[in-house]
Amino acid sequence: MEKLKNMVRNIPDFPTPGVMFRDITTVLKDSEGLVLAVNAIAESLANIDFDLVVGPESRGFIFGVPLAYKLQKGFVPARKVGKLPAETAKKSYALEYGSAEIEIHKDAINKGDKIVIVDDLLATGGTAKAVADLITELGANVVAMSFLIELEQLKGRETLADYNEIKTILKY
Amino acid sequence: MEKLKNMVRNIPDFPTPGVMFRDITTVLKDSEGLVLAVNAIAESLANIDFDLVVGPESRGFIFGVPLAYKLQKGFVPARKVGKLPAETAKKSYALEYGSAEIEIHKDAINKGDKIVIVDDLLATGGTAKAVADLITELGANVVAMSFLIELEQLKGRETLADYNEIKTILKY
Repeated sequence: MEKLKNMVRNIPDFPTPGVMFRDITTVLKDSEGLVLAVNAIAESLANIDFDLVVGPESRGFIFGVPLAYKLQKGFVPARKVGKLPAETAKKSYALEYGSAEIEIHKDAINKGDKIVIVDDLLATGGTAKAVADLITELGANVVAMSFLIELEQLKGRETLADYNEIKTILKY
Repeated sequence: MEKLKNMVRNIPDFPTPGVMFRDITTVLKDSEGLVLAVNAIAESLANIDFDLVVGPESRGFIFGVPLAYKLQKGFVPARKVGKLPAETAKKSYALEYGSAEIEIHKDAINKGDKIVIVDDLLATGGTAKAVADLITELGANVVAMSFLIELEQLKGRETLADYNEIKTILKY
């Protein structure tokens, strides 16, 4: 993972002063980095039996879709409100300032489905928890989550305490 | 392609009355559909020599990243304004009502790079043209574009007349 971590670019004071932004675009633009990242996420889930990958818009699409492709699973996007054309289930969640809402197509998930949530980053865990709670309300089971990066001091794992098998590849 | 086309869901009057929305989420959630779609895009580019895939946020990530992963190319996201942390080049383009702006990291693309743009949908072609023009201004070459769906009556190919090798898989 040393090699992969060295491909992440560290940008101080973005988006606000005092924040060190972990930029994955330098991983993605390197063909070897992209393969390493997707394969590491796949490996983190090697012992998990699941049916579907769910990724939150928009960076959750970046690793969620190639993971689903590689492992021959379906992919279900969790999107910002108003983007999905069929009937949806919605969930609000708090942001640092204000709140956001995320939607999933109701018919994309069946009762009893075993679901893995994939995103680039585990920060406070707010988005992942909203997505996981929404999936749970639809009667499916969130059997694992995998994130390329974890910002440990933001304690996302505490937010996700209701869920098991929280995998992260690069820890900061 | 018949099989793939049958997996696209047709939703009338979304997002506005009179529009038939071609919903790819039903392709994505089917593990076979996802593989068929990504492989069809890869096949459409079989004779193209290129270095990088560029995909516009956010649905361009859905097929662009697995394509890059499959073909062992780098992926560069074109994002909405304010999301990319390092120095960017920007381009405005007209929407039906108002305008939008898209950004790419300046250092993600080198002069002379051979680039393929991937997105789910070729509609009016406005987004793809903005991204292609931006890449061209950065000194790289857009050698092809590939879209899963083309809405032929919106004449996106006319908008993209400056570019060659416009590939589309499912035509409506």
